[in-house]
Amino acid sequence: MTAIQGGVTAPKGYRASGVAAGIKPSSTKKDCALIVSDSMASVAGLFTTNVVKAPGVRRNATICEMGQAQAVFVNSGNANTCTGDRGIRDVVSTAELVGASLGIEADAILACSTGVIGVHLPMDRIAKGVDGCVAALSTEGSSDAAMAIMTTDTVSKERAIEIALDEQTVRIGGIAKGSGMIAPNMATMIALLTTDAAIGSDALATMLRRAVEVSFNRICVDNDMSTSDTVLMLANGAAGGSPIDLGSEDFALFETALTALCQDLARDLVRDGEGATKFVTIEVTGAASDEEAKTVARSIAHSQLCKTAFSGEDPNWGRLACAAGYSGIGFDPEQLSISLDDVAVMRDGQAGPYREEDAAAIMKKPEFTIHIALNGGSGTATFWTTDLSHDYVSINADYRS
Amino acid sequence: MTAIQGGVTAPKGYRASGVAAGIKPSSTKKDCALIVSDSMASVAGLFTTNVVKAPGVRRNATICEMGQAQAVFVNSGNANTCTGDRGIRDVVSTAELVGASLGIEADAILACSTGVIGVHLPMDRIAKGVDGCVAALSTEGSSDAAMAIMTTDTVSKERAIEIALDEQTVRIGGIAKGSGMIAPNMATMIALLTTDAAIGSDALATMLRRAVEVSFNRICVDNDMSTSDTVLMLANGAAGGSPIDLGSEDFALFETALTALCQDLARDLVRDGEGATKFVTIEVTGAASDEEAKTVARSIAHSQLCKTAFSGEDPNWGRLACAAGYSGIGFDPEQLSISLDDVAVMRDGQAGPYREEDAAAIMKKPEFTIHIALNGGSGTATFWTTDLSHDYVSINADYRS
Repeated sequence: MTAIQGGVTAPKGYRASGVAAGIKPSSTKKDCALIVSDSMASVAGLFTTNVVKAPGVRRNATICEMGQAQAVFVNSGNANTCTGDRGIRDVVSTAELVGASLGIEADAILACSTGVIGVHLPMDRIAKGVDGCVAALSTEGSSDAAMAIMTTDTVSKERAIEIALDEQTVRIGGIAKGSGMIAPNMATMIALLTTDAAIGSDALATMLRRAVEVSFNRICVDNDMSTSDTVLMLANGAAGGSPIDLGSEDFALFETALTALCQDLARDLVRDGEGATKFVTIEVTGAASDEEAKTVARSIAHSQLCKTAFSGEDPNWGRLACAAGYSGIGFDPEQLSISLDDVAVMRDGQAGPYREEDAAAIMKKPEFTIHIALNGGSGTATFWTTDLSHDYVSINADYRS
Repeated sequence: MTAIQGGVTAPKGYRASGVAAGIKPSSTKKDCALIVSDSMASVAGLFTTNVVKAPGVRRNATICEMGQAQAVFVNSGNANTCTGDRGIRDVVSTAELVGASLGIEADAILACSTGVIGVHLPMDRIAKGVDGCVAALSTEGSSDAAMAIMTTDTVSKERAIEIALDEQTVRIGGIAKGSGMIAPNMATMIALLTTDAAIGSDALATMLRRAVEVSFNRICVDNDMSTSDTVLMLANGAAGGSPIDLGSEDFALFETALTALCQDLARDLVRDGEGATKFVTIEVTGAASDEEAKTVARSIAHSQLCKTAFSGEDPNWGRLACAAGYSGIGFDPEQLSISLDDVAVMRDGQAGPYREEDAAAIMKKPEFTIHIALNGGSGTATFWTTDLSHDYVSINADYRS
């Protein structure tokens, strides 16, 4: 497994593009992205569990259930959510425009929208964006697509890896966006993944679900789950070779690589979290189960008081113990131990044998790990989160205006 | 039911005091409070559900189960949490000091601690605080006690009311503290209530539980539930008259008054929320049940994105719809309607017929109400919350240092 360049166009048989069509307030910012496979591909997807969903999310889920698609179009700047019947017609029209321009059935076109809620899509600009994207398609277009899906992101996120399987070498590429409304329980962002491996849609859906559970579902910037959250993955088989079947050795190799790539992208999202000045890894051990470990980790990852302490570089382990304690998971507080990197700030329910300046030094680092040992079982979990800073408030107090 | 002056010393037969004993960093700030009933009283309490609890919380819960107490001592500045066996001994010693000084059995003394976690109580200063409090006891001491229990609060909270029952007039008084770590599911703060009505401890516990559920459990400043959260109520019968029994007409009158007083104190806490510049009431109607309405209201009350939009005075109803949608409660998004005061920003799942400047004008008010109509049942709930401001971050980034 080797990191390579090229994002979603690193795998064979994909072209991509990103253009500015005036959907974002700034007319020079890219806001339409397109990824096209040379041939029909297996497709799998995971979507927001929010009751309030963009109509595109419902339509994409239906296509993923069928298991086949050839292209993904994304507009940023407008989420096409809470837009009624016209919103439903607009997403179908968007797919039809893309399909007509590419000479592909509209049913093979996935369409995503991300941005402001409650405003109708400007279909004239969408049409301009579709034309521009199709004209600009390139086997080196991943970076443009990664930029075009950004909303409040400050940097684009793009990853690719190469994996040597038993008989052939295959590649996985991905781009992602989202720096606010990042909370677990469905990847609360958009991530688009491609591979040139041959994988049936059922096998693809299985490994994607498992990879997302330990990557995009383990990150937190704030508590908010958007109405558009989507992870989509296309597998076109352009690398040749026989299909990767569920349970095979190649499947295990591929899943490990896919999980690593998703975790890289997930961490990229946290690092670019709105206003984030800290990247904090939370490792929980000793829970009764992995699920319970995840709940404790998430409670800390979401705590406003813990996150402001990170921002203030304050080694206030009492807040960590407190957030672990109200997670809803039972544990023996007299067994609870907490370390910041290698500094044992809490041991067996009380202050640990540490020097305040050592703990303070850890908190000053841009990245550190909090170890929470419950000492009550073998369940473990890892979570990634940010601090809650003044800039987070500034960014979100003024986003729409 | 009439609002009166006097806080916890408004009811007959109570004295209170508050003094500075050097437990808070500033030696002039009051940090020890005492409330004493002239005679043994019925007592009821509700406590944090956090697994990590102050030893005082466990001890107070045991006394409340027995149903009788005569005094409450509170120190602020130190939560005596995560302090091991010594913490347990320290809280017993505190009660013994108070009991010896008052000539009351230590088992009749409730003792609360609030403040920083993980530091041992300075028992010499506690002793000084106990002596000072006992010497200063007064039938007009409620305000001093209200000041002494404050931590990051900027104003003290004190309320009292008088209720004409069938045969006699009785009074309820209360003081409360807490402006961060305010989240529902157990009043995440300290509230101390007194009454001169005669009420058995079972009846008292029943009405206190119900009053707290629709007051202190319906407020949010941040998501954090502290390790010390406590509501305690003493009923000493000093007003004379026969006991108020469960199910009687007087019981209903008294419970209504208690609920109103608790809601007043709860709203006082929200208004003084850390860094709060907005006081926002969330009214949910049309849910399948009151419980489901509460879940939707809480989801909005806790949303960092909604709270930063309040701070930015941005009528971003998409974030409200989004937070309602991910609450975990099922509803028909096509039926969802939202108003800001009387401005219908969303109707039947889409933008409502409103003018942007009217919605913006509501958001500029220091207090406004968000109406969420799910149009799917008869369940309703009210919740009170604040905005998330720069000052919240400043206060909590620097609290401990």
